[in-house]
Amino acid sequence: MDSINFPDDIKKLNLEQLKQLAGEIRSFLIEKVSKTGGHLASNLGVVELTLALHRVFNTPEDKIIWDVGHQCYVHKIITGRKDRFDTIRKLGGLSGFPKSAESEYDAFNTGHSSTSISAALGIAKARDLRKEKYSVVAVIGDGALTGGMAFEALNDAGRSPNNLIVVLNDNEMSISKNVGGLSVYLSKIRTEPFYFKVKEDIDIILNKIPAIGKSAVKALGRVKGTIKYMIMPGIVFEELGFKYLGPIDGHNIAELENVLTRAKNTKGPVLVHVCTQKGRGYTYAEKNPAVFHGISPFEVETGEVIANKVPGYSDVFGSEIVRIAEKEERVVALTAAMPHGTGLIKFSKRFPERFFDVGIAEQHAVTFGAGLAKNGMIPVIALYSSFLQRAYDQVVHDVALQNLHVVFAIDRAGIVGEDGETHQGIYDISFLRHIPNMTILAPCDYNELAKMLEYAVLEHSGPIAIRYPRGAGPEKLFDTPDIKLGQSLLISEGNDVTIAAVGNKVEVAMKVAEKLKETGLSADVIYCRFIKPLDSNTIINSVLKTKRLVTIEDNTVEGGFGSRVLETINQKGINVTTRMFGYPDAFIPHGSIKELVHMYRLDPDSIFNDVLKLINKSKVKEFRAIR
Amino acid sequence: MDSINFPDDIKKLNLEQLKQLAGEIRSFLIEKVSKTGGHLASNLGVVELTLALHRVFNTPEDKIIWDVGHQCYVHKIITGRKDRFDTIRKLGGLSGFPKSAESEYDAFNTGHSSTSISAALGIAKARDLRKEKYSVVAVIGDGALTGGMAFEALNDAGRSPNNLIVVLNDNEMSISKNVGGLSVYLSKIRTEPFYFKVKEDIDIILNKIPAIGKSAVKALGRVKGTIKYMIMPGIVFEELGFKYLGPIDGHNIAELENVLTRAKNTKGPVLVHVCTQKGRGYTYAEKNPAVFHGISPFEVETGEVIANKVPGYSDVFGSEIVRIAEKEERVVALTAAMPHGTGLIKFSKRFPERFFDVGIAEQHAVTFGAGLAKNGMIPVIALYSSFLQRAYDQVVHDVALQNLHVVFAIDRAGIVGEDGETHQGIYDISFLRHIPNMTILAPCDYNELAKMLEYAVLEHSGPIAIRYPRGAGPEKLFDTPDIKLGQSLLISEGNDVTIAAVGNKVEVAMKVAEKLKETGLSADVIYCRFIKPLDSNTIINSVLKTKRLVTIEDNTVEGGFGSRVLETINQKGINVTTRMFGYPDAFIPHGSIKELVHMYRLDPDSIFNDVLKLINKSKVKEFRAIR
Repeated sequence: MDSINFPDDIKKLNLEQLKQLAGEIRSFLIEKVSKTGGHLASNLGVVELTLALHRVFNTPEDKIIWDVGHQCYVHKIITGRKDRFDTIRKLGGLSGFPKSAESEYDAFNTGHSSTSISAALGIAKARDLRKEKYSVVAVIGDGALTGGMAFEALNDAGRSPNNLIVVLNDNEMSISKNVGGLSVYLSKIRTEPFYFKVKEDIDIILNKIPAIGKSAVKALGRVKGTIKYMIMPGIVFEELGFKYLGPIDGHNIAELENVLTRAKNTKGPVLVHVCTQKGRGYTYAEKNPAVFHGISPFEVETGEVIANKVPGYSDVFGSEIVRIAEKEERVVALTAAMPHGTGLIKFSKRFPERFFDVGIAEQHAVTFGAGLAKNGMIPVIALYSSFLQRAYDQVVHDVALQNLHVVFAIDRAGIVGEDGETHQGIYDISFLRHIPNMTILAPCDYNELAKMLEYAVLEHSGPIAIRYPRGAGPEKLFDTPDIKLGQSLLISEGNDVTIAAVGNKVEVAMKVAEKLKETGLSADVIYCRFIKPLDSNTIINSVLKTKRLVTIEDNTVEGGFGSRVLETINQKGINVTTRMFGYPDAFIPHGSIKELVHMYRLDPDSIFNDVLKLINKSKVKEFRAIR
Repeated sequence: MDSINFPDDIKKLNLEQLKQLAGEIRSFLIEKVSKTGGHLASNLGVVELTLALHRVFNTPEDKIIWDVGHQCYVHKIITGRKDRFDTIRKLGGLSGFPKSAESEYDAFNTGHSSTSISAALGIAKARDLRKEKYSVVAVIGDGALTGGMAFEALNDAGRSPNNLIVVLNDNEMSISKNVGGLSVYLSKIRTEPFYFKVKEDIDIILNKIPAIGKSAVKALGRVKGTIKYMIMPGIVFEELGFKYLGPIDGHNIAELENVLTRAKNTKGPVLVHVCTQKGRGYTYAEKNPAVFHGISPFEVETGEVIANKVPGYSDVFGSEIVRIAEKEERVVALTAAMPHGTGLIKFSKRFPERFFDVGIAEQHAVTFGAGLAKNGMIPVIALYSSFLQRAYDQVVHDVALQNLHVVFAIDRAGIVGEDGETHQGIYDISFLRHIPNMTILAPCDYNELAKMLEYAVLEHSGPIAIRYPRGAGPEKLFDTPDIKLGQSLLISEGNDVTIAAVGNKVEVAMKVAEKLKETGLSADVIYCRFIKPLDSNTIINSVLKTKRLVTIEDNTVEGGFGSRVLETINQKGINVTTRMFGYPDAFIPHGSIKELVHMYRLDPDSIFNDVLKLINKSKVKEFRAIR
């Protein structure tokens, strides 16, 4: 492995050396990821596939697009980034996903699921329009294939004349265990022995046909025409217009190279069905691929996660929703391939018949929830903020327009850290707050998350979203009364500035207020439980006193919470000096949450300094105005 | 037809009477829609299907969900709404889409494509959890089936135990001619005679098998196990877990009732494949189903549209993009099943190899465009504002994150009128403006649309959106200089108020300014060519003079253009009396554009009155402050 840096180095190896290399790469992955944390199981599964792809294809001229991207580590290792692998997912280091700004070998950025075939088709069309010559390969997991846009792309590519290779990396998993009809179909291909037997048998039959009676011959003439139904295990893909090759053993490099070479020389769209094992080569990951999908640093010998596992917002949500569902039998819970990540695994065990994992299919999840609500159930849909982006139209068109009582539990809202720019959940306030009928809440601690969840499920009606951050937060910052629609809480009083904050920024606002107190200044701190509807009276009463408004949120400032506050009070004829704190209008890179919060000056010290400047500046202005 | 008002009335009829009724309904539809305009061809195609559904199923207890909804007219006619049919799509009248608020027979609201199976599955699951008994039927066109979320739902429903009926209304069309692999597959089922021959032939073969030699018998044993591949034309649906029934003639009521009854008595998910003819029974619509899909009032005898066809923004776009593509060969154009509606039909004829209609698949359209841009082409993606909602995540994740040069031509931005709440394009500013790297423009007239398009395609790089309204606008309001990134135009000067406006509201702003002049007041009118980046200097310089700011937009005020102006100037330390004009935080019903603009007080007179009040009120305030 020491001598391997670029794809050319791999092309010189023989089969034995390749097997050795595969083993070394696995050890390297296990060792590195055990320290940094990251996506392990998916990468262990594609070692041979990645080597074979880089031997058969001539990257970076040939383009490989890794769907979702969490299986790109091996690819990164053998495309000049081995030495920087220690920096993966760290601030300023390698991204955990393909990133064309990082390397010319990364043909297209990915992060969300099911985009690769669309992108590959675009690249292939452009290639042919420009009369260039090279191969375009999309590598997509069977889980990602259940995302609707992958089907849209298959449907389009299947009847396009352009050469395009789709490698279906079938490991029977997306992130958790796969679901749905397609998954059953793929597993049938893999396991029914008939499918593996091909032409030979059929030829025997066809040769015998003339011996049968006349009417049967006529019928069999028709059968002959559809004989491909028997010899083609990938009939579904064939019907969409793809040439199907497979299924093949994704850990047999020779076989892989053989079939990928055939695919390379095939005209038009071709689908190569590769069967791999997620977590391959590391016992703990083989046994628990879902756990080792995205993992924190762990002990290699025992497979145990090293960090003290502190319960986070997802755990609180997971426990509370079970408690609420005990009281109210109409509660059902939905997730899109994230039963573990969202904390719903507990619910799924307690109420299996009221739990639905629809696979990577956020659009369907939301409208399916709308159907459930339409018929009297109370669906709680737990999604990560960045994945809810996939279902924006369904929230507007299927839920909000009918004012259906659907509860959105938006996990990973705000900065998520190491997964970086594709996963930062900093847009949800901006893309939800203009949707009519929508109510949006953000808890400042676990106690509040529990209260809000109970309120949203049992007391509210209509669409309602609760956004909460990734990881851990405080158990309870202060005592809070029962929730009333649109009511905020004035949690500390002062004269010099009004600080309105949401979610995990309430704690920050409290710290800023304390620091102000140390300098002889004081602040009203308003905990806006509701981003929508907004408690404009409390804010207006406060700013009429303080004349200065500061808002703090874990969202982009563009069209976010601060923007909403500003709009609301301005429409009521109030305008005061305002400063909105939140993420700027830019994609936020990967790094630890702590580092990023500092970098964007959203920690208590930075905000305190900026607020102090704001107060002093406007005091000078006022002083001058008076003189 | 006179005696038919509710489904029960239909159940009494015999086959002859039903045929007569079908004919009368067709005449009724042609006559009514020729006057009101609306969706004709799709409704003519489903007359027999709708009658059969209402005879076999017991609505409203049994639930029928009409995908997209533009084929619900016959359903409305026979569910108590015949007498109000004249009001369809008019302000306060019947909606052109299913709407549960309008009738208990409308089980779920629709309007956008491909949602019905998800909704139906939700309703069916809820039914079974509540231990209720009735049927749930989703009626979906073959065009809508290409939308990814329909596939997500099929994949989920196919392995769910719940009884659920999907009726595939296959008319070889979505809105325009269908595209993609699925369409080819369906057409093969319809046309290959083998597929229509079923069990009988197969039985003959199976009976003859023992006569063949031993090794062949063994092989055929396997063939037997997969014999369904030969007798089942709907293999793709079968593989996803559906029982497939069909294909059947969708204009033969007896056959329809027979198969629908079988479906009703089938356990688990079942798909009924019904072949219909779009436009059936009206020659002009049969010949030009795309033209008669959504049509303006027309002459029944000639099929000619009555209204003087004034060229609209779509036509200007359609001509200009051809002109630009003549100059720059890297320009390619994409649409999602809307070559006519977007005006791209001209481009598709001039540059067939550079034109891509991907079907109803907005997500794929956008990421496919990203792939094209990644490889050096300049994709222009023309979509309606309300349908771009479907691709929000793809705009963020696949285009903006890689800062790719993709041009979004957003047609039907703002109020669209008769299609109503599902189609109003009043959210795009709010859901696009917080996306990093995004540039957003809105032309005030045709001249400006042409300039902006040329700028976006030839001069800009990075993601850029041009939003323009439905229908016609002014040719040229005033002379304009070349476009510079982020530069607005001060088109009239005054002292009492700053009016910043976008798109078609610039003309309104000019009229308001004229009216102010008549009362002795005057306004700065700023034409914000760019919604993002915003020309904050011009606005700030103006409001420092006028002290009052008014914004006007054809978008929701929630997080829209006005909100962006407010944010921007406040972040720069400026705060003045502000009033934002736009649509309120509510879904806007159907009606003519003119009526709606008046109703929401966005016509020049209403805005003038409100601005006058604003000026007077703040003058009194200032006067008092001085005293």
